[in-house]
Amino acid sequence: MELWFTETHSPGVRFSMKVTREIVRHQSDYQSICILDTEEFGRVLIMDDYLMLTEKDEPFYHEMITHVGMAVNPAITDVLVIGAGDGGTIRELTRYPGIRHIDLVEIDEDVISLCKAYLPQTACKLDDPRVHLRVEDGVKFVRQCENRYQLIIVDSTDPFGPGEGLFTREFYGNCFNALTADGIMLNQHESTFYDEYSDEMTRVHRTISDLFPIAMVYQSHIPTYPSGHWLFGFASKGFHPIDDLKADTWNALKLKTHYYNTDLHRGAFALPNYVKEQLNI
Amino acid sequence: MELWFTETHSPGVRFSMKVTREIVRHQSDYQSICILDTEEFGRVLIMDDYLMLTEKDEPFYHEMITHVGMAVNPAITDVLVIGAGDGGTIRELTRYPGIRHIDLVEIDEDVISLCKAYLPQTACKLDDPRVHLRVEDGVKFVRQCENRYQLIIVDSTDPFGPGEGLFTREFYGNCFNALTADGIMLNQHESTFYDEYSDEMTRVHRTISDLFPIAMVYQSHIPTYPSGHWLFGFASKGFHPIDDLKADTWNALKLKTHYYNTDLHRGAFALPNYVKEQLNI
Repeated sequence: MELWFTETHSPGVRFSMKVTREIVRHQSDYQSICILDTEEFGRVLIMDDYLMLTEKDEPFYHEMITHVGMAVNPAITDVLVIGAGDGGTIRELTRYPGIRHIDLVEIDEDVISLCKAYLPQTACKLDDPRVHLRVEDGVKFVRQCENRYQLIIVDSTDPFGPGEGLFTREFYGNCFNALTADGIMLNQHESTFYDEYSDEMTRVHRTISDLFPIAMVYQSHIPTYPSGHWLFGFASKGFHPIDDLKADTWNALKLKTHYYNTDLHRGAFALPNYVKEQLNI
Repeated sequence: MELWFTETHSPGVRFSMKVTREIVRHQSDYQSICILDTEEFGRVLIMDDYLMLTEKDEPFYHEMITHVGMAVNPAITDVLVIGAGDGGTIRELTRYPGIRHIDLVEIDEDVISLCKAYLPQTACKLDDPRVHLRVEDGVKFVRQCENRYQLIIVDSTDPFGPGEGLFTREFYGNCFNALTADGIMLNQHESTFYDEYSDEMTRVHRTISDLFPIAMVYQSHIPTYPSGHWLFGFASKGFHPIDDLKADTWNALKLKTHYYNTDLHRGAFALPNYVKEQLNI
């Protein structure tokens, strides 16, 4: 018997992976959560039928949504992470001894408990004493925050379903207020190769650009995400992602990474023409 | 009725595209050649069941295998292209008024005639008077060449089947001899994300590094190729791909490109750690 999980990347494109074992299939109050073992990618997490991560390439994603901010300001001590119940972003953050406090706001407690049980590769640091888990809606949480974090990471799912509110003007405005005067916000920015999210991402980039003095987009290869070409946003109140990169300081930390390095950090902000045109950059 | 073309990217990974019409299916002396219309990617070319190009993302590939060399030495006049019967690389080269002579060596005449008939997007410049078509084996052709070309582009298929000889030490050595003293060689370098080609690409990079004073690898997003993360080789007798980039000269040419730009040129040489480790860079 062969089992295959197939994801629809666009109405005319499907991506399939061979499944060696179904580990868990669960319906939470917010979404369906499935964990499978696959032949090529190791263990994978699927929510509402969309692939969230695979063990093989999640380090690329989690390193790029974390270190690009930390290497610009390695003195960051207080961080807010929204979404990210799988723990991958937390794992990368806890590698910095200088970070003192991480608030993790995840709306769905079941994501956390299932990842702790079945995805230790990402969830391994969720019990770090610096991590403060808040099971609530990130959209509501940031409304009450002011001048509190030097780094906010919006590690959202897609711009529909439970993550929908994490793509609105009100939410990004509240993130701006929650940041200190030297604050940085990093957000997952989807892809623009397939038309499905292209307009939405253009709108998101315009919204963030209206709010933040510096708003740039950078890219990564995430082979198991639609098109394999994934975008992230870097927004800040002052730091420039390349001019203010502290490459020597970051390299002195000697963090071993699978994907990220400080040369690649600079290169990631050089976008193809078609992406620049779509985002009106 | 729904028709889907499915390509196997690894034993546990499949990529499928919805087909709106089968255009041609032909068996040449060397390989099977199929052209299909698809819902997402426009017209696509498939050889021996492997996807060669789609109209939607072929510009990314052909721009990256052409302009990265031309922007380092915009004074290039004589070029050899091996493989590339679809014409995409030729189309990009013919945009340079300074190029006087292009030898196109393609082993399979049927690729040329079918692409001319059914893939005008790539084949549109194959009749440019500067293009000299030679239907023969590229491996044999370069044996007779010495000090003749400033640029050689090895636009090969995969390291098995008709393109196999284009990945050998003898072939690259003959390319070295066929180049002038300021010569540059660009070659398609496959991907290393899936294990299938990883060892082969490590070997190829070592071979080219042994022969050329400068041998570097750069990357691109090609969404319809396995993993979407594609590599190219830049080898030269003297020019450095970044230090010698003539960005102002290239930009003054005002070539409109879908993917390539001179910032991205620099960024493309910053590789992820896992790729550097695999290639022993």
